[in-house]
Amino acid sequence: MSSRAFAPFINPVVRQFEAYVPGRSIAEIREAYGVSRVIKLASNENPLGVSPAVREVLRQQADLVFRYPQSGNPRLVKSIAEFHHVDPARVFVSNGSDELLDLLFRVCAEPGVHNVVTALPCFGIYTTQARFAGVELRQAPLRPDFSVDLDAMLALTDENTTLVFLTSPDNPSGLAVPKEKMLRFAESLPKQCMLVADQAYVDFAREEDGGEDAFSLIPELEAHPNIAVVRTFSKSRGLAGLRLGYGILPADLVSYLWRVRLPFSVNLLAEEAGIAAMKDVAFWRETVRVVEQGRRQLEQGLQELGCNVVPSHANFISFCRPGMENAGGINEELLKQGVIARWLKSYGLPGYMRVSVGTEEENTVFLGALKAALAAC
Amino acid sequence: MSSRAFAPFINPVVRQFEAYVPGRSIAEIREAYGVSRVIKLASNENPLGVSPAVREVLRQQADLVFRYPQSGNPRLVKSIAEFHHVDPARVFVSNGSDELLDLLFRVCAEPGVHNVVTALPCFGIYTTQARFAGVELRQAPLRPDFSVDLDAMLALTDENTTLVFLTSPDNPSGLAVPKEKMLRFAESLPKQCMLVADQAYVDFAREEDGGEDAFSLIPELEAHPNIAVVRTFSKSRGLAGLRLGYGILPADLVSYLWRVRLPFSVNLLAEEAGIAAMKDVAFWRETVRVVEQGRRQLEQGLQELGCNVVPSHANFISFCRPGMENAGGINEELLKQGVIARWLKSYGLPGYMRVSVGTEEENTVFLGALKAALAAC
Repeated sequence: MSSRAFAPFINPVVRQFEAYVPGRSIAEIREAYGVSRVIKLASNENPLGVSPAVREVLRQQADLVFRYPQSGNPRLVKSIAEFHHVDPARVFVSNGSDELLDLLFRVCAEPGVHNVVTALPCFGIYTTQARFAGVELRQAPLRPDFSVDLDAMLALTDENTTLVFLTSPDNPSGLAVPKEKMLRFAESLPKQCMLVADQAYVDFAREEDGGEDAFSLIPELEAHPNIAVVRTFSKSRGLAGLRLGYGILPADLVSYLWRVRLPFSVNLLAEEAGIAAMKDVAFWRETVRVVEQGRRQLEQGLQELGCNVVPSHANFISFCRPGMENAGGINEELLKQGVIARWLKSYGLPGYMRVSVGTEEENTVFLGALKAALAAC
Repeated sequence: MSSRAFAPFINPVVRQFEAYVPGRSIAEIREAYGVSRVIKLASNENPLGVSPAVREVLRQQADLVFRYPQSGNPRLVKSIAEFHHVDPARVFVSNGSDELLDLLFRVCAEPGVHNVVTALPCFGIYTTQARFAGVELRQAPLRPDFSVDLDAMLALTDENTTLVFLTSPDNPSGLAVPKEKMLRFAESLPKQCMLVADQAYVDFAREEDGGEDAFSLIPELEAHPNIAVVRTFSKSRGLAGLRLGYGILPADLVSYLWRVRLPFSVNLLAEEAGIAAMKDVAFWRETVRVVEQGRRQLEQGLQELGCNVVPSHANFISFCRPGMENAGGINEELLKQGVIARWLKSYGLPGYMRVSVGTEEENTVFLGALKAALAAC
């Protein structure tokens, strides 16, 4: 028997990645803090849970999971194309939008040659997948009010920039760039450069500012060939656990994405649930309504507690207590009361917390817990 | 409005990939051939379908798909580790074993520097992911009897070979390399080189030859640090549609794989179903029994029809009609009768067909349809 020393080769690019720390489950928080009821408002999930139509289709399809999915997910592609009134040849679906973002770095840039531009801070997947793909990521800091600095982003582009990622509405601020400003920005980019608008939260855009219509770029794609839009079923469609993202992109790019996507990366139940979720317009509208209403409830409640609130177009709100540079104590006090929100230290904002919009009852419990937490800190 | 010509940049590596052709569904075959009953024995799915315990857990968990999965899937990892009696630190789970294979190319090789060795023909994912990762793939042709030529594979390795992929039991032959031979092969590899044994079908290994115990490398991993094993829930566990693969690998490699895996690539229902499937030992054993029995039925039936049969350790059988160089006509005749098997043209074996082991009834229908097809060709 050989028991010689052996260590597998690890790519130097990968060696730089930090050790992985698994997230804590609701059950673990319950045990750690000895609380019986836990409210999770940390991951911007759907406040209404799962659409009844999706639940039904999942129950019906449970018998079929021994079959492989149909590669290329043509039925799901068709239902997305119909909903958004776009050519199915422009639609690509993926195992969460994460997979699409990873593929964009691998397909639309050559390592060591091209670069990609985005904001700082940005969605963590942009940073990790750029590094993993060996592609240079250039980041323009957000302004002090958390708005994206489009001029600074433009200044970072050059003749080797192939992608610019822009999250709108942004996370964790919830700020969104109006459609016209995005279009002008796309027009100003170098000619080889594609704007990727990550619009996971766009259907939550504030009604008073024109709602989704004032921010979504999907209707503009025909006239603006250098824009691509990334969307998700994780938020307003209530399918975070099934991992289903999609993009509306230039058709020739879509053709290449299909060639390199792992053939069955979107699983059978995700596909069926996605089709059902696209059809259940009533559930989707009700979600948007509940978020709009809950966001008002939370904004008002937070302001009454003396917090500064970032005006959000998403299903979450970031806030801080004026003068407090570290919200870690508030986070800990909330956890003791069984309320999981998100402390934004990992986004470089240790004074800030982010709370997802829940049901009216969850929002009320959160505000009560926060009141006690603020009093204790 | 800008409508200037724009084409997104496509990495030259990706431009080489062939256009994507989606597979045909059972419904499409039904329509195309005007048959009411379709039997699919093309993808080596589980003949018994889905375990009742899995169905139950899927129905129960349907309400929870609005939640993100727990990153790192610790409960699933634990259940796999317990089943195989290995350290959980050696277990990695992925969105189908496809995702793990892709990550191995990206993590364990440096593009343009290292190379990977496997057989020819091989599982298509090895070829596509090597190209996508920009890693050289060296392939040693199988022998005329479809057995792997380990000497030829060894001869292809050099000081820059970091991985050798070996599928055992192999697809589409069903042939398997006995454990002792695999161990000697691993010991003979260059010191930096890891043997990746893809053993998706190993629990179907023939009882008369010692069954899984005579072929599975998992019990040997402690003593052989340069071996990794890839397994799947798609076959004997009946979860092809949920995409769940896993590997038992060196712990330091596993730690890096977690760092670079997309955080939620294994979805919530796949995780729950995987845990339930690991526990349902009765369903798994019954599957293995039905496959063993159905394989005998098919081998005997095929031989009675004058076919040459490759002796298989998997839940499928490859066969040919002696003297017939192209089985396309047989494939077409089977489809006309509503029987989907796999014509092996894409594996470079146009004279061969592969049939998955089905239920006794499906096998009987298949043999009847084949008899008619052979008479018509």
